[in-house]
Amino acid sequence: MTNLDLGPGREFDRIRRILGTLGPLARGVGDDCALIPEAGGRGTLVVSVDLSVENVHFRRDWLTMEEVGWRAAAAALSDLAAEGAETIGVLASVGAPAESPEEDLLALMAGVGAAAYEAGGAVLGGDLTASPHWVVDVTVLGRAERPVTRAGARPGDGLWVTGALGGARAALVTWRQGGAPTPEARHAFVHPTPRIEAGRALARSGAHAMLDISDGLGGDAAHLAAASGVMVEVNLERVPVASAVPAVATTAGLPAAQFAALGGEDYELLVALPAAFGSEQAARFVREVGLPLTRIGEVRGGSGTRFQLGGRTVALPGYDHFA
Amino acid sequence: MTNLDLGPGREFDRIRRILGTLGPLARGVGDDCALIPEAGGRGTLVVSVDLSVENVHFRRDWLTMEEVGWRAAAAALSDLAAEGAETIGVLASVGAPAESPEEDLLALMAGVGAAAYEAGGAVLGGDLTASPHWVVDVTVLGRAERPVTRAGARPGDGLWVTGALGGARAALVTWRQGGAPTPEARHAFVHPTPRIEAGRALARSGAHAMLDISDGLGGDAAHLAAASGVMVEVNLERVPVASAVPAVATTAGLPAAQFAALGGEDYELLVALPAAFGSEQAARFVREVGLPLTRIGEVRGGSGTRFQLGGRTVALPGYDHFA
Repeated sequence: MTNLDLGPGREFDRIRRILGTLGPLARGVGDDCALIPEAGGRGTLVVSVDLSVENVHFRRDWLTMEEVGWRAAAAALSDLAAEGAETIGVLASVGAPAESPEEDLLALMAGVGAAAYEAGGAVLGGDLTASPHWVVDVTVLGRAERPVTRAGARPGDGLWVTGALGGARAALVTWRQGGAPTPEARHAFVHPTPRIEAGRALARSGAHAMLDISDGLGGDAAHLAAASGVMVEVNLERVPVASAVPAVATTAGLPAAQFAALGGEDYELLVALPAAFGSEQAARFVREVGLPLTRIGEVRGGSGTRFQLGGRTVALPGYDHFA
Repeated sequence: MTNLDLGPGREFDRIRRILGTLGPLARGVGDDCALIPEAGGRGTLVVSVDLSVENVHFRRDWLTMEEVGWRAAAAALSDLAAEGAETIGVLASVGAPAESPEEDLLALMAGVGAAAYEAGGAVLGGDLTASPHWVVDVTVLGRAERPVTRAGARPGDGLWVTGALGGARAALVTWRQGGAPTPEARHAFVHPTPRIEAGRALARSGAHAMLDISDGLGGDAAHLAAASGVMVEVNLERVPVASAVPAVATTAGLPAAQFAALGGEDYELLVALPAAFGSEQAARFVREVGLPLTRIGEVRGGSGTRFQLGGRTVALPGYDHFA
């Protein structure tokens, strides 16, 4: 499989240059997961990794060690959800400061184990070593009959999103301002739920393209557009906003919908569904999965993204880990 | 699959306590790789992770960035070799200091890609983020018809080792003393070759148990003994010693064989083969794989390890990443 086209962003410029350096030594890079056809021809193994680094992805004064472990595993498991895969299990590589109490390590691994179990899997292995600061890299393994990549969206598709956005960002912004997030916002940040069941239901509903929103709707819509070779148009007024958002957005001087759309770490799914998927199918999804599903825009011919708010086009950058 | 019994060591005490905390949330932990039967029932997917941290596993004044990448990937690929698996590919999670030049990242990934290619695979994905210091976690994916775990050794088996030991340790000890290793010793440390072909040939030859020597012969023989529920006896005089070892061992005041047996990072294979595997079979292995294969001891009933040198029993500790 050739590598997928990546969207804009400094991190993705770097990945593009890595792929340029590797040439034929890299294959199939650019989707949420690596896809490996199983020997028997009956399914596809999906694999992804997600690296969390202390003081880059989490701060120990914000999260308990169990939450650090849950969040690291949930972020990785979310990539399985985005392929429409079921969970097999996880491997956890942990770098722990040599002087750290063992309770911290056990709590972190309890969080990893709980997230794996909640997603239908278990801890299958890992690596443990000393490190100047905490590092958690989670490898997730899953299986899909028909993996849904980022690359299949077609003009005419509807663009939908699960759950509500912006809760995790509300917590993050509040912490950064020295405040204490509301319990709801804090929960969204420290305990995101990988949308495994939702992803599988959307795959069965004929999803053309899907990814999890980890860099913000701006960045991730751009990735879907680039990989699929289409233009993605989003009406921000339709974006479902977490109830913790409005108060924090007002303080930040942003419309709630725009604030929510900038937030990545809720790990909701962004999915292109065929035009035939309408309100009746959405109601069935809500009944079966117990999660909101909202149409926020459409897929058109062309390239790039367009975000509309109050009749105007607004810019919506993705999150850049190197900014 | 239940978890395997682990050998002694502070790192393994920690892993044992993690497994105690996880209870049924962990499955099949303790071998070189996680083993996942493929959907079609035709093979087993083998997966492993190996975390390398700057100033713990490598120093940038010792290694080029390409060597850092090669070594990190080779260490992980070596776990596939130890299962008798063929390589599918690797995923690389990289934490890079925000201020590091992009050339460093590209060189590191070129090293990862070269090691994956040499082992018969490619780079299939990864994750890239900022980190206060360099972190490389490599996930390897392979496939085996009949994976060889650490757990199958039986009394009466011969204990064999591929290649020669101690070259990487000769480099490490020389660096730590402020010296410059010989080119041969340096090469052993910076450019270990995962023994993929050797592992597959040994699996075909009916290997009962196998692992790669990453913590030193002392620690890894103890792991094999613990997982298999047997006693392992090694005659250190038979251990094949890398030609870079004697000079450094003399300076260190150790017999060359003991120095070599303390060295882990050559990534050679330690394998229990049925008694019927003798010098004729070994000669065929050497012809086919182009690598020495030396009988260094035997598997007996009981538990633990015994290392003999000059008619005396010597202690041979494994390497402890938390010491």
